[in-house]
Amino acid sequence: MISKPAIDAERIRKAMQSGKAADAESGGLRYVRFVHDFEDIARGTVIFDHGTVYGYPAIGRLLALRTGLAKQLSGPFWMEEKIHGFNIRVTRIEDGLIALTRGGYVCPFTNDRLPDLLDTAIFDDQPDLVLCAEVAGPDNPYLESAPPFITEDVRLFVFDLMRRNSPRFLPQDEKMELSRRYALPSVEIFGRFETSDLKPISDILKRLDEEGREGAVFKEDSPRQRRTKHVTGSANLSDIRNSVYSLLDLSPEYFTSRILRLALFVDEQELEGSDDLNRRAGAAFLDGLQEAIRRHHREGRVSHRFRCRFRDPENAGHLIRYLKRASGHVQIVKRDLKPDGEFWLLEFDRIYPSLNGLLSDWLAGKVVFD
Amino acid sequence: MISKPAIDAERIRKAMQSGKAADAESGGLRYVRFVHDFEDIARGTVIFDHGTVYGYPAIGRLLALRTGLAKQLSGPFWMEEKIHGFNIRVTRIEDGLIALTRGGYVCPFTNDRLPDLLDTAIFDDQPDLVLCAEVAGPDNPYLESAPPFITEDVRLFVFDLMRRNSPRFLPQDEKMELSRRYALPSVEIFGRFETSDLKPISDILKRLDEEGREGAVFKEDSPRQRRTKHVTGSANLSDIRNSVYSLLDLSPEYFTSRILRLALFVDEQELEGSDDLNRRAGAAFLDGLQEAIRRHHREGRVSHRFRCRFRDPENAGHLIRYLKRASGHVQIVKRDLKPDGEFWLLEFDRIYPSLNGLLSDWLAGKVVFD
Repeated sequence: MISKPAIDAERIRKAMQSGKAADAESGGLRYVRFVHDFEDIARGTVIFDHGTVYGYPAIGRLLALRTGLAKQLSGPFWMEEKIHGFNIRVTRIEDGLIALTRGGYVCPFTNDRLPDLLDTAIFDDQPDLVLCAEVAGPDNPYLESAPPFITEDVRLFVFDLMRRNSPRFLPQDEKMELSRRYALPSVEIFGRFETSDLKPISDILKRLDEEGREGAVFKEDSPRQRRTKHVTGSANLSDIRNSVYSLLDLSPEYFTSRILRLALFVDEQELEGSDDLNRRAGAAFLDGLQEAIRRHHREGRVSHRFRCRFRDPENAGHLIRYLKRASGHVQIVKRDLKPDGEFWLLEFDRIYPSLNGLLSDWLAGKVVFD
Repeated sequence: MISKPAIDAERIRKAMQSGKAADAESGGLRYVRFVHDFEDIARGTVIFDHGTVYGYPAIGRLLALRTGLAKQLSGPFWMEEKIHGFNIRVTRIEDGLIALTRGGYVCPFTNDRLPDLLDTAIFDDQPDLVLCAEVAGPDNPYLESAPPFITEDVRLFVFDLMRRNSPRFLPQDEKMELSRRYALPSVEIFGRFETSDLKPISDILKRLDEEGREGAVFKEDSPRQRRTKHVTGSANLSDIRNSVYSLLDLSPEYFTSRILRLALFVDEQELEGSDDLNRRAGAAFLDGLQEAIRRHHREGRVSHRFRCRFRDPENAGHLIRYLKRASGHVQIVKRDLKPDGEFWLLEFDRIYPSLNGLLSDWLAGKVVFD
């Protein structure tokens, strides 16, 4: 089935000329990938011969719910869980399923594991469907952390449905109906609220915060499909704790903005127990850094061990090559690939050269002029 | 007394042409100021008709004493207290004393208060002397914080002596002899050590840390005058706590580097009580930010009130003008100038536009795309 192109050849040519789109290839499948936003086309949009999968658009972050919900949304909206994982769009191209990252690459890991993550029968009835989902869990290849309620491997959580050749989401009722009918693994949907429902919304967020969960997305139940998101204090602490090895590789604003967001969450939710919160905030920075220093004394360097499972060991190789291309100056070192029940278990390290270089210099007694 | 110039006219011309030096003026006194390092001339070097006052050189910071002292210093060295204040060089030009900032400006505040800060009789015997000192205390116009052992106003602490027209420091014995003879207010000198004396040095640093003091400077007792400095964990926490209103105005590395230094101090000094340390580290970030948010709710903006005392109220005006020129986009707003005993008490606010702008946006419910 070759559908009418959603984005005509002239626009594609213009996007490619200006460096906003580029040719890409994965497992023999050729496509065009939007590297950046271009006019109204979101970054990560992918054009196959079989149709266009639009990029998942950026969702604005709300720091103050009390004023923000009413300012950003009109009328009723759905509140859904925001899962801490990585964003994936799944669609069927020819006879195979394909999992695209936010940036529009084929994810060698998710692609391999799709049969474990959802019942793919839905695509037999709905061949042009695009599932928008978060993949999360401790054994994932991208993130140092996972939601507390996932204790092994990874799980997939659908939060939106699209169709090829359209940048719009299916309406909430249609999404919920299809999810029910095909038993799609979905994010928790907390309910339909009005902007005046601050109390129940706040109660849910406080519970998510206590349970160490990331936050919520608010989706206007209207044709204009406005969305906004809000994360818990816990999520900010968890981001800091899990990224502290990258202290010098991430932009330093990564850390200062999270501390500021945490302060705003605590203020708005009127959380008690500042001693406990302060202790957790300090630990988020210091536990990891002290562990890094001890590890540097012991092993001469700081790294993080990642584990993930594959059905086909060849896909582990694809993943390593993909990570090496995408990781900038953070080093990826494959450690092991061995059978593990019905799977192959890949182990690799992510080595943080900036933190390692600085600790090597500092612990060797070099001076800094600042 | 017009002395032979230490830096000849040709070098001054070259430095000015390349933007490294510039003409300056204060109270009718004209001079040349080195805005940046130029060849072997330190930033802050000032050339008067009466001679040159060399800049106070940057001192390299040591993060790990165990390896660093032996690497940076040879033979015996003096360990002196590093005071958390601002760096001043005091010298006599014509019949008046002048206090120069690190950058080579005349400090309108210190200049005004010199008679309170030290017995200036030393300059009658030693007219070409340059006192290098730290001015510190809660009522200072530059820093949000002060050493815990100074509870009001400011004090001056001499830590080096130079002579005009020479970039070298007087040897330690000569400095100590002059300090004694003229009863100069000085930094605490902890003693003369060898690089193998790690235990007593570490004990002093742990005591300084417990007392909330900043750290130490290590000065090689040799003609090459090598120096290095090291600060306590407390000092890093205090820097964070006192600069958190400037979270968005300082480089974000300001905060991440201090957290990393703190982790290294704790590791090297094998400090116990991680819960307490974590709580203090979290509080350093969060107490100030939560206070900022509450103040923003209440007053619509975040600012810090500074107070300092003058003998001559005209100098308060000079200070405000100087601060307005030097403060970049941080706003300086004069609040009050009134008699206070034998002094004039100036009050002014430093207003942090970046934090204010961000809090205004966020608390009004705007969204952020990140």
